[in-house]
Amino acid sequence: MAAVPALVRRIARSGVLPLCRQPPVWGRAAWQPPGPLRSPGLPLALCRAFSNNKILVELDESSGVATMKFKSPPVNSLSLDFLTEFCISLEKLENDRACRGVIFASAVPKIFSSGLDITEMCGKSTEHYAEFWRAVQEMWLRLYGSSMVTVAAVNGSSPAGGCLVALSCDYRIMVENPKFSIGLNEAQLGIVAPFWFKDTFVNTVGHRVAERSLQLGSLHSAPEAHRIGLVDELVPEEKLQEKAAAVMAQWLALPDHARQLTKSMMRKAVLDRLVAHREEDIQNFISFISKESIQKSLRMYMEMLKKKKS
Amino acid sequence: MAAVPALVRRIARSGVLPLCRQPPVWGRAAWQPPGPLRSPGLPLALCRAFSNNKILVELDESSGVATMKFKSPPVNSLSLDFLTEFCISLEKLENDRACRGVIFASAVPKIFSSGLDITEMCGKSTEHYAEFWRAVQEMWLRLYGSSMVTVAAVNGSSPAGGCLVALSCDYRIMVENPKFSIGLNEAQLGIVAPFWFKDTFVNTVGHRVAERSLQLGSLHSAPEAHRIGLVDELVPEEKLQEKAAAVMAQWLALPDHARQLTKSMMRKAVLDRLVAHREEDIQNFISFISKESIQKSLRMYMEMLKKKKS
Amino acid sequence: MAAVPALVRRIARSGVLPLCRQPPVWGRAAWQPPGPLRSPGLPLALCRAFSNNKILVELDESSGVATMKFKSPPVNSLSLDFLTEFCISLEKLENDRACRGVIFASAVPKIFSSGLDITEMCGKSTEHYAEFWRAVQEMWLRLYGSSMVTVAAVNGSSPAGGCLVALSCDYRIMVENPKFSIGLNEAQLGIVAPFWFKDTFVNTVGHRVAERSLQLGSLHSAPEAHRIGLVDELVPEEKLQEKAAAVMAQWLALPDHARQLTKSMMRKAVLDRLVAHREEDIQNFISFISKESIQKSLRMYMEMLKKKKS
Repeated sequence: MAAVPALVRRIARSGVLPLCRQPPVWGRAAWQPPGPLRSPGLPLALCRAFSNNKILVELDESSGVATMKFKSPPVNSLSLDFLTEFCISLEKLENDRACRGVIFASAVPKIFSSGLDITEMCGKSTEHYAEFWRAVQEMWLRLYGSSMVTVAAVNGSSPAGGCLVALSCDYRIMVENPKFSIGLNEAQLGIVAPFWFKDTFVNTVGHRVAERSLQLGSLHSAPEAHRIGLVDELVPEEKLQEKAAAVMAQWLALPDHARQLTKSMMRKAVLDRLVAHREEDIQNFISFISKESIQKSLRMYMEMLKKKKS
Repeated sequence: MAAVPALVRRIARSGVLPLCRQPPVWGRAAWQPPGPLRSPGLPLALCRAFSNNKILVELDESSGVATMKFKSPPVNSLSLDFLTEFCISLEKLENDRACRGVIFASAVPKIFSSGLDITEMCGKSTEHYAEFWRAVQEMWLRLYGSSMVTVAAVNGSSPAGGCLVALSCDYRIMVENPKFSIGLNEAQLGIVAPFWFKDTFVNTVGHRVAERSLQLGSLHSAPEAHRIGLVDELVPEEKLQEKAAAVMAQWLALPDHARQLTKSMMRKAVLDRLVAHREEDIQNFISFISKESIQKSLRMYMEMLKKKKS
Repeated sequence: MAAVPALVRRIARSGVLPLCRQPPVWGRAAWQPPGPLRSPGLPLALCRAFSNNKILVELDESSGVATMKFKSPPVNSLSLDFLTEFCISLEKLENDRACRGVIFASAVPKIFSSGLDITEMCGKSTEHYAEFWRAVQEMWLRLYGSSMVTVAAVNGSSPAGGCLVALSCDYRIMVENPKFSIGLNEAQLGIVAPFWFKDTFVNTVGHRVAERSLQLGSLHSAPEAHRIGLVDELVPEEKLQEKAAAVMAQWLALPDHARQLTKSMMRKAVLDRLVAHREEDIQNFISFISKESIQKSLRMYMEMLKKKKS
């Protein structure tokens, strides 16, 4: 994709080397690789892990299943650095023949991801907005279009862009805690979810539920999210890993080739739509986010968050 | 829109002046403006009402919520006069900065609206059919595309065009009386719902439910309509106003700008489709309705209705 | 349609004359024509039946309802011969003014149809693949686009192409036996359902259910199929005929013309898509099925089936 060089340039600038040039960092993840897929006596050499700044990636070569764990406290917000790391990690797994599926989870308690990092959208240059938005697009294009099986283990709240990450996976399991919520709540902040967020949402919950939920900027509690089809199932927190592994095993039982072609057939129309309008979408974002009224409401929102914290 | 001058001409011909040139008629509506939004001690001057022939419009400036009450006995049929008044009233509210939302209800017991007025489609000239159909299109384009929050308080049966009015709102609350029914039952009369009725229906209940319901010309009882998603919730008749006001308040809690852009994103494709094929759709209607077989079955249907009454 | 001459040529080659040139074979079907629609004292002359090799067609002229019963043991697989007979029978009924609706059922116990005949896709010439695939397309175009009311009485399992036959009808009633399953399970065999199978599926169960079910190649038990909307209702086996007749009577109560135009409005977009890409779709099928890897897995699958039998 055309954006890859941009990503690489960005990484070069930020001093983070692409994963493929880094020596892997061996170790055990705090969020354990799925139990049933890894027998206790498995030689450690079959399990590779690489830790970057914001995402911990661990690949169990015996099962072909990787986990990507978001460890960017306090709320795993999707900053430009986070998105860049996300795309590079995903691309590395995509190109690794040992990897057939990825489970996404959070290493931060109570939050899966809080969505796009507002500091990237506030008081920055036009060039920065463009670079940031391209990275958001890139994340979605790679995840929604991934040829691997992707399972979201939603172990915390997941508003806005965090919800998009979950929506872009093949399957969503959420912790049944009713205090955890998920949804595309952009309208609550006075902003609008882009059309490809909407397309992904409609593909998951249907037109009517999407129309109402997007206009109200609804954050749905886990039980409600399950009822409207925004997540596929709920489990107690202690069962999440086990369940994610079992679901992954079920999806990996299918021949990759047939599953991949089927997935592409289902998602291609919506992916193609962003690819065809990508630059236009970036310009729309820039002109929208640069408005003084929008900047003002984002600043107020950040003030509110700061006060909440202190 | 191009049709506005036609509307104005029509009004000029019919002797009804556009609302904006009429002195407002102050008064209380039989169907009270939503309770919680209007405290008992509110000064009367904050509440404006204008009554025309067929629709009573009341705007509560303190809440920004208008009610449009259909008072065209016996069955609130969508005649050319009714549609003209509807469009003008809606346009007036749309242009009134004091108004942010509209609740639609009936002032006629047991019926919300019986749909298109069959007398407008029977034994008239080609020019009349064209004018009538353009008004039906105009009503839908304005209502489905309204930038205001629109809530249908369906306090009676609502077949065919009456169902379309409800479908075009943002939210539908129906009285839980199982004797009240709603649906696009055109096929029962030997006619076919136009593609934009169908598109609106599919956007609400999904393709499969729409396919079956449209082919069977089903009229769904209130509980069934709720079950298939044709209405969003059911309430006892005495709770309808209160519920409509509460729903409206929930939708108005969102910033207008973000909500409007989101609504447009969800509905634009379907609205654009009619705009692109509007003249063709009028010609289709004329040639269909002019068929002797169709005219005959409409005449028989009207005979049946007359006998029923007497 | 352009394919009709090909069908006729094929029939000429296979020695089976088109139905319209055959004298009707009178007789009673094992699967009785719908009870309530045929009074016991009805003169036999009102009920015409014609039996070919693989499908028994019986038309009850008094009700206007035909039954097409699949009698191609062991599993009613959709071979080229079967498809040819199916299309000719359907066309004959379509052109017969006495026929307004068709009920499809199986005369083979426990199986509705096992789907496309794998022997037609294995070790054959490119020309054969093309001829076979055109016949599969033709079957769907005629059935999904039929102007008659079509009811699937699914009295057995119905995987892959068998599921497509059911999906292409207006209404699906399935025997409630949880051992009977239905679904587009192509991915399980390492192959991919073509886009028009997918479109038909999405129109019935929605995008999300289709995405998951197609990727997993799911075969849904009758109760699950009902829950996800893949079939419209479940009945005990002994009630199937009665129920199919009652549903048919309900649909035939509508004026044909309005119902047909409505059906066409709902299905035209998806039908047109195959018509526009028909030759391309055939070429895709040929190049996919000719791959050595696909041929190998189909041979293995057939070996497995043979071993199962013996």
